[in-house]
Amino acid sequence: MAGNIFGKIFRITTFGESHGNSLGGIIDGCPAGLKLNFEKIQKELNRRRPGQSSIVTQRNEPDQVNFLSGILDGITTGTPIGFIIYNKDHKSEDYKHIKNIYRPSHSDFTYEKKYGIRDYRGGGRSSARETICRVVAGSIAKQLIKDIQIISYVSSVGNIEINKSYQDLDLSKKNIEKSPIRCPDIYTEKKMLSLIHKTKKIGDTLGGTITCVIKNISSGIGEPIFDKLHAELAKAMLSINAVKGFEYGSGFLGSKLTGSQHNDLFNIDGTTKTNLSGGIQGGISNGMDIYFKIAFKPVATIMKKQKTIDKYGNFSIIEGKGRHDPCVLPRAVSIVESMTALVIVDYWMLKKLSKYSEIKN
Amino acid sequence: MAGNIFGKIFRITTFGESHGNSLGGIIDGCPAGLKLNFEKIQKELNRRRPGQSSIVTQRNEPDQVNFLSGILDGITTGTPIGFIIYNKDHKSEDYKHIKNIYRPSHSDFTYEKKYGIRDYRGGGRSSARETICRVVAGSIAKQLIKDIQIISYVSSVGNIEINKSYQDLDLSKKNIEKSPIRCPDIYTEKKMLSLIHKTKKIGDTLGGTITCVIKNISSGIGEPIFDKLHAELAKAMLSINAVKGFEYGSGFLGSKLTGSQHNDLFNIDGTTKTNLSGGIQGGISNGMDIYFKIAFKPVATIMKKQKTIDKYGNFSIIEGKGRHDPCVLPRAVSIVESMTALVIVDYWMLKKLSKYSEIKN
Amino acid sequence: MAGNIFGKIFRITTFGESHGNSLGGIIDGCPAGLKLNFEKIQKELNRRRPGQSSIVTQRNEPDQVNFLSGILDGITTGTPIGFIIYNKDHKSEDYKHIKNIYRPSHSDFTYEKKYGIRDYRGGGRSSARETICRVVAGSIAKQLIKDIQIISYVSSVGNIEINKSYQDLDLSKKNIEKSPIRCPDIYTEKKMLSLIHKTKKIGDTLGGTITCVIKNISSGIGEPIFDKLHAELAKAMLSINAVKGFEYGSGFLGSKLTGSQHNDLFNIDGTTKTNLSGGIQGGISNGMDIYFKIAFKPVATIMKKQKTIDKYGNFSIIEGKGRHDPCVLPRAVSIVESMTALVIVDYWMLKKLSKYSEIKN
Amino acid sequence: MAGNIFGKIFRITTFGESHGNSLGGIIDGCPAGLKLNFEKIQKELNRRRPGQSSIVTQRNEPDQVNFLSGILDGITTGTPIGFIIYNKDHKSEDYKHIKNIYRPSHSDFTYEKKYGIRDYRGGGRSSARETICRVVAGSIAKQLIKDIQIISYVSSVGNIEINKSYQDLDLSKKNIEKSPIRCPDIYTEKKMLSLIHKTKKIGDTLGGTITCVIKNISSGIGEPIFDKLHAELAKAMLSINAVKGFEYGSGFLGSKLTGSQHNDLFNIDGTTKTNLSGGIQGGISNGMDIYFKIAFKPVATIMKKQKTIDKYGNFSIIEGKGRHDPCVLPRAVSIVESMTALVIVDYWMLKKLSKYSEIKN
Repeated sequence: MAGNIFGKIFRITTFGESHGNSLGGIIDGCPAGLKLNFEKIQKELNRRRPGQSSIVTQRNEPDQVNFLSGILDGITTGTPIGFIIYNKDHKSEDYKHIKNIYRPSHSDFTYEKKYGIRDYRGGGRSSARETICRVVAGSIAKQLIKDIQIISYVSSVGNIEINKSYQDLDLSKKNIEKSPIRCPDIYTEKKMLSLIHKTKKIGDTLGGTITCVIKNISSGIGEPIFDKLHAELAKAMLSINAVKGFEYGSGFLGSKLTGSQHNDLFNIDGTTKTNLSGGIQGGISNGMDIYFKIAFKPVATIMKKQKTIDKYGNFSIIEGKGRHDPCVLPRAVSIVESMTALVIVDYWMLKKLSKYSEIKN
Repeated sequence: MAGNIFGKIFRITTFGESHGNSLGGIIDGCPAGLKLNFEKIQKELNRRRPGQSSIVTQRNEPDQVNFLSGILDGITTGTPIGFIIYNKDHKSEDYKHIKNIYRPSHSDFTYEKKYGIRDYRGGGRSSARETICRVVAGSIAKQLIKDIQIISYVSSVGNIEINKSYQDLDLSKKNIEKSPIRCPDIYTEKKMLSLIHKTKKIGDTLGGTITCVIKNISSGIGEPIFDKLHAELAKAMLSINAVKGFEYGSGFLGSKLTGSQHNDLFNIDGTTKTNLSGGIQGGISNGMDIYFKIAFKPVATIMKKQKTIDKYGNFSIIEGKGRHDPCVLPRAVSIVESMTALVIVDYWMLKKLSKYSEIKN
Repeated sequence: MAGNIFGKIFRITTFGESHGNSLGGIIDGCPAGLKLNFEKIQKELNRRRPGQSSIVTQRNEPDQVNFLSGILDGITTGTPIGFIIYNKDHKSEDYKHIKNIYRPSHSDFTYEKKYGIRDYRGGGRSSARETICRVVAGSIAKQLIKDIQIISYVSSVGNIEINKSYQDLDLSKKNIEKSPIRCPDIYTEKKMLSLIHKTKKIGDTLGGTITCVIKNISSGIGEPIFDKLHAELAKAMLSINAVKGFEYGSGFLGSKLTGSQHNDLFNIDGTTKTNLSGGIQGGISNGMDIYFKIAFKPVATIMKKQKTIDKYGNFSIIEGKGRHDPCVLPRAVSIVESMTALVIVDYWMLKKLSKYSEIKN
Repeated sequence: MAGNIFGKIFRITTFGESHGNSLGGIIDGCPAGLKLNFEKIQKELNRRRPGQSSIVTQRNEPDQVNFLSGILDGITTGTPIGFIIYNKDHKSEDYKHIKNIYRPSHSDFTYEKKYGIRDYRGGGRSSARETICRVVAGSIAKQLIKDIQIISYVSSVGNIEINKSYQDLDLSKKNIEKSPIRCPDIYTEKKMLSLIHKTKKIGDTLGGTITCVIKNISSGIGEPIFDKLHAELAKAMLSINAVKGFEYGSGFLGSKLTGSQHNDLFNIDGTTKTNLSGGIQGGISNGMDIYFKIAFKPVATIMKKQKTIDKYGNFSIIEGKGRHDPCVLPRAVSIVESMTALVIVDYWMLKKLSKYSEIKN
């Protein structure tokens, strides 16, 4: 019940710390007979890789995944898929000075309280480095549900935000990926970039929001009442480092509308004229686009002096060392998509078991 | 894997539809030896009961819970606790006219797509009536973790919202419960009441937000990396009918701050000067207050004519009949607290298994 | 993680004690659209009902199941199926004398050690009365997998045993059910009956074995490596009260053979000439009959004086009161079949998710 | 729900095939603060290692485990423990001739039916080589529950069997380990050895039984009703390759006794005079020794010609190549102990959550 397993049918278990020998995972429940596109998996990893541009950490990791089992001649065999990614450029000495110190708004303190011990090197297990395993699994999940499109992008950085709905943006992969921030709106992107550079220069950090859209998903996907599709999406998103909030469809703004304003009226074909519902009713997809937004807090490691405490109850002064992102949002896009894919693949498979008429033969 | 089981250690399974014979559930994993206070359980049920005031549905249900097992002389025995609540005042005839019709922004359409069949009477399983079972289980959970305080209140209705942080409000049970809206700020409450009455009169409905605060919780509670405490809270909240969003600590606003603004600096005793983190770091409680806010969409059933479709592909006109809430927020407070208690009890028990030194003897 | 939930996909949670108000359960995960045959369910319950003949307990229970949810017009809706069976003829006063006494080879002692409290009335939760819920769920499972035949029968009572393999017996329902012992071999049955009567007369009890055969099951069912089909069957069987052993295929005797004697050679169509494997290879069905045998210890409650201890550390004399079975085997047949059906239905559904080619559309 | 995860609290997920790059696993839920004895782990691995003596396969594998995470300075940190064992001496060319052939009584046929594809090299995932991961996890589990002794030994090979109960044998590690067969009775061991040599010479193989004894276990361990301690042990044992049967306590023989013969009478201190129950009542340990016996079928790969079929529906002749065990029992002892430890550690931790009085503080 320790929390390192995710999923019901397509289940992933992961291991690894920021500065350990390696990180990896096991996918149990991937159907047999899927021809894997390894290049796509690596491309996905490259999207969250450090060192992509001047606005992210310069830690130099190839982030190459090695598959260890469950695949024969490039095809999944139905047995568990083991994989490993070696840490190459970890500089643990950067962390010795914090061995006994609790960094503000990091989980040093809470890991120590829970476990009585913590791997201080680069944040250990609590580092976002573990999300690399999520991307490996998520990119395989994506290949399973290849007709369903999962697109996410940076919709705000600090207080700079895109003032358009997702429908009014060019969400083609090409358009999003050409931006170092993965912001599909050029005008906003420039302002974001300038804010990031300015903030980095003074040793500070930024948060922001990511919007995710799921297109071409069929209706009938979700498992009420506790495992509603959006409930599991919320859990998946909040499980990502630094995420503070989740809203889908009309979200928090929707709470200010009246029923007559908020209800989505049907077209004759079962689609709806508006989509404030965000593609889900009662925890089950209705075939319309699913969209949600998640909030990231600013990176806790700043390059400024902070007064803090150590585990012996003394005050201490700390200042960020090492190679850190001033803003993780551009790299987090692939993590958001991966976790989304992991949720969707699970519910997509479970849907096959909903109707007796479809399973009896 | 159908979604009617919640929890890891203290697990609840529920059944029942809005207009069936009864609803009920089974709690598996409640420790033995807890002397139950049945009055408290019933009081909790009364908080979500219909017919409490003029602003909620007038369906007349005693909502009395009967315990069927797992208890001897008022004390839990460690075996499963079965319970049942009979439906007394269901008027299924109110729903015959929608047997073949999909109500806008309800789950009629999606249940039909997923299961090929749906219980149309009062929304069947998708009705919020099922949350009564959550309150039964949640109120037992509350008794297990009685030192931990879980308080929630209505923080906004439509666009009327309390402009104070929770710290500046009187969150005593007495103060919250004396308000029919469960809004602890008298000034705001009056405006909310007036808005609800006005909206009800024109046959429309409202949404809003509920804020929940967890006080006196110890540090070390939570199971990273996928089952972070706030991730599970998010799932629990989004599993409640009509919820569209969740944020904890600084939430969406926090995404606009810089790291140096957002970081919570430590006091010498391990508490923090500010609490933008919302009492959780890396998915584990740090001993500070945990607080979060959730958004509810407006009730989908409105007393106005709406054009919609039936399952045969024809247009149809629908108008709400039956007894409906213009705003569910006041009743939802106990549901929010119950789901919170269910999450906390689970992680509180799991924490006992974190350290070898504490379990070996 | 308390053990009252069974199954992965078709999951059953149960509650109830021997002398409580009622027993019941919830099935979560039954596919929608199954037309239930309620008569068949009741018939199955009647097979395990007390009072069927002179050789079983005379407790007079109608054992009528009431379905509370998840069914509309006799058809499953995909939502959880709640059900309840009221206890009618419990005579708790028969048990007052053992309130503080530990009966030999019962679980009074162990429940007290684990939970610190126990429901002494009729054995509480540890009574085989709980198996009634398994039969309700199992008989629904049987209807889902109706092409698969699950047949079990009493193959030995005490040291009287059928000396034929299952292939040489008439396993028609008619032949088995006409026997009060559910032994398909008339010659052996007579000897069993006589042994039971003789043993009952002297206040003693008997054990025996049940053999179960699964016919017409397709290949490819099972989930290695930990959840092998026979491993889950073993668990299901050992979870039944009084069961001490499980063997499938060649079983314990098979351990004495050599590889060349034991190997099942193939026919050209993929069937095998012999079936010492018992229809399963590597945890996955191969399409041949699956068969297994389970051992039941003799009933622990005997009508003879036994010296025992109480919870205060004193010796005491105990003598069985109440209405008890001298031999539970005839009633256990339906329990064995039910648990078998619960295992098979789960793996049968999971099989649908094994191959990508079959789930992608 | 694919079956490669075992355990509830101390959960292990494994991957790897006989002839792949490596095998490995992840332990999620190991409490923090356990100082690991790595030498003991390796010793345990050596007990199941090939090439130990002339009577087992000569495949030359160092079987050295590498730990990748979850450990700091030799102490568990509470985060997942990843580990890997590289395959060094796999000779896949030995298997090319069976690429399209189904070996009798192997799982070639069933894997193909289930997944539509199979890794033919050395049996792929279905090979007992995967049990190496169980031993790694099991030997860590053993260190957690170090006061509980788990001892197993070979009690029969083919039709040669020890005619003494476990109480009459010297079960010291020293005595068992000095025997190449891990049979603690010298007299019987010699006969076993001679039978194995004789059988190997003619290219045939043997099965047998292993007896396992758990000593010094406290009462109150087990989770009725479905997850009874012995039910989970049965599942764990049947999940081991080639196991055909499980019995605990009096087992199959117990089914022939009467209640008055079988009941275990109490001593004044709560122990029992006899222990036909096998240390478990109602699925919960009673503090007496737990003991059980499991049956292994003979190894399916024999060095004799067998007629079989290929996947295209043709007959074919096959003859064992490669390096195979004539009898796996001596190597299986450590696997049995490991799986036992995995079950016990889980229930031992869960027991801590049974009583409210013990968890509230």
